[in-house]
Amino acid sequence: MTALGNSVGGSASAEVVEARSLAEAASLGAAARGKIVFFNHTMSAPEDYGKFIEMRTRGPSAAARVGAVAMLMRSLATGSLRSPHTGMTSYDPDAPRIPGAAISTEDADLLHRLLRRGPVRVRLSLGCRMLPDADSANVVADVRGREKPEEVVLIGAHLDSWDLAQGANDDGAGVAMVMEAGRVIAALPQHPRRTVRVVLFMNEENGLAGGKGYAAAHQGELGRHVAALEADSGAGPPLAVRLRSGDGGSSMLAPWLAPLASLGIELREGDASGADLSPLDPSGVPLFAVHPDVTHYFDIHHSAADTFDKIDPGNLARNAAAIAVVAYALAEMPGTLPRPAPKPSHDKQDVTRPAAH
Amino acid sequence: MTALGNSVGGSASAEVVEARSLAEAASLGAAARGKIVFFNHTMSAPEDYGKFIEMRTRGPSAAARVGAVAMLMRSLATGSLRSPHTGMTSYDPDAPRIPGAAISTEDADLLHRLLRRGPVRVRLSLGCRMLPDADSANVVADVRGREKPEEVVLIGAHLDSWDLAQGANDDGAGVAMVMEAGRVIAALPQHPRRTVRVVLFMNEENGLAGGKGYAAAHQGELGRHVAALEADSGAGPPLAVRLRSGDGGSSMLAPWLAPLASLGIELREGDASGADLSPLDPSGVPLFAVHPDVTHYFDIHHSAADTFDKIDPGNLARNAAAIAVVAYALAEMPGTLPRPAPKPSHDKQDVTRPAAH
Repeated sequence: MTALGNSVGGSASAEVVEARSLAEAASLGAAARGKIVFFNHTMSAPEDYGKFIEMRTRGPSAAARVGAVAMLMRSLATGSLRSPHTGMTSYDPDAPRIPGAAISTEDADLLHRLLRRGPVRVRLSLGCRMLPDADSANVVADVRGREKPEEVVLIGAHLDSWDLAQGANDDGAGVAMVMEAGRVIAALPQHPRRTVRVVLFMNEENGLAGGKGYAAAHQGELGRHVAALEADSGAGPPLAVRLRSGDGGSSMLAPWLAPLASLGIELREGDASGADLSPLDPSGVPLFAVHPDVTHYFDIHHSAADTFDKIDPGNLARNAAAIAVVAYALAEMPGTLPRPAPKPSHDKQDVTRPAAH
Repeated sequence: MTALGNSVGGSASAEVVEARSLAEAASLGAAARGKIVFFNHTMSAPEDYGKFIEMRTRGPSAAARVGAVAMLMRSLATGSLRSPHTGMTSYDPDAPRIPGAAISTEDADLLHRLLRRGPVRVRLSLGCRMLPDADSANVVADVRGREKPEEVVLIGAHLDSWDLAQGANDDGAGVAMVMEAGRVIAALPQHPRRTVRVVLFMNEENGLAGGKGYAAAHQGELGRHVAALEADSGAGPPLAVRLRSGDGGSSMLAPWLAPLASLGIELREGDASGADLSPLDPSGVPLFAVHPDVTHYFDIHHSAADTFDKIDPGNLARNAAAIAVVAYALAEMPGTLPRPAPKPSHDKQDVTRPAAH
């Protein structure tokens, strides 16, 4: 078992009642009073993460609202080999704060089978507690543009991870990729036209403090942020470049990506996002992404198995090279991408539900 | 970390010294005195298990003989997601008994990297202890032969497992397969010519007590055991039937296996064995096996991840069907297989090193 990030500590010993969605938990009514609500789901592929993440981000409050004393959930994972996977939860202001924890997929299956036979009682105890905020910092490095230094192409990743492991894939790999991409561009005989900025965000995992801090500190410059990327999907083989810009952006960028053909990477349809970049949305900053293969990403994501041995140096280098090529193109090409329609500003509830990882 | 089966309990806090084989540990000499010997290896595929198992079965004694105070080993595993894998070890009479434990492949990689930088100190504490033997029993059921009931085709599996998980693959799956194969044969309109005996062996994992007990209790009948199988390789898709008999056995058996063509299974070259069957070797009992795909078997073998969710009911049924077909053939066909040359009798040291799983 592992506590969800942001969970209160506490103990409970109670019967378990299973739910397959927030709505099903709400419909339990009195049947959940004094019980432990167990959120189960059918995640089997990476794309299921977005489908079921609401159980993690809002499950404890949904359970508490119908009188539950604790919440358990099946890990959001495509594999676990008995390791539970954690991640951010949040508490709604109108619900009691009850402990929330994840169990391995194996233990979820066991609990599900036992519940089909009759009542199941579980005792859980979480020792976690929230400490006061401490000072920390983003790390920002510029490769200053030779002609338009005030126009910025941002490539970022996040410095923090969960404490179960090293966070090698989430997001040590991303940090290595953008640092290397920045190094490669800085080592060119001449800097590109615009500034390439490498940003290592602090505290993505539990509140986006770094992403929000960056947006606040650079508010006056965001109109001149011409594109931004966050590398936060592990270090599988890079498959494609994706873009969120205004109409016509793809056709502007595509010719610049010819060097990526040697890596089998091309510009493909599909959105781009990044949790730390979401505070940039109101400013209409175009987003780009280099998407790696995430087939096995959620086997280890937010678990004790997110360790350095899972990193393939060749794939890490290919991702870094792809990021460097796209960032260079955006910093060097004559024009800037059309800006997408601004997304609505993120309120507190939204940022506790990051779209991706 | 998990204690190896049969390890003494105990604590140690000492510097670590790495070895890649028993021979390398022996060559450490004084460099190992007072240290923890860490056996590391390069297991990456199922067939590597046999290559490196000596580290587990004999590592603590090899380390103790050069003065080590404890032994750690990289889990014998093709994957672990941070779960250590246990298994049987044994102590040589001439070496001190020191604690032996396995760490996950991830932690082994970490320890290896740290050791390249300088001295590493590890503290370990094992609470395990050996309790006195308790009564237990094999389970034996006969489908009595209609013409030659004294001739026996044995199909077996083992009832016990390690306590880290349910032992669904090792060897719950095998138990289910042979019980189902026996049930299918017993349900035929007439029993086959010879007796089909289903044997569930107790205590394969930690000393083969059930296998040795069976051989001792049935010593007088072993000359009339015409073939024996142990299902102990998990429940992957069945791939092939294999045989250990005297010359000409394969050509006798092959025509009887035509029904297995519908499952894509055929008689292939390759030995057959079974830890619980090794005490039958001196009697020259022909052995047969239905080999499943073991690609992922050692991801979960002897670990907390050996749980019921890993069992595919379809593959379980296909294995049971294949075992039923082969056992029926051996029990029904006019002649019996030629017997292989007897293997030498197993002494104590041998049976603590089971050939397979």
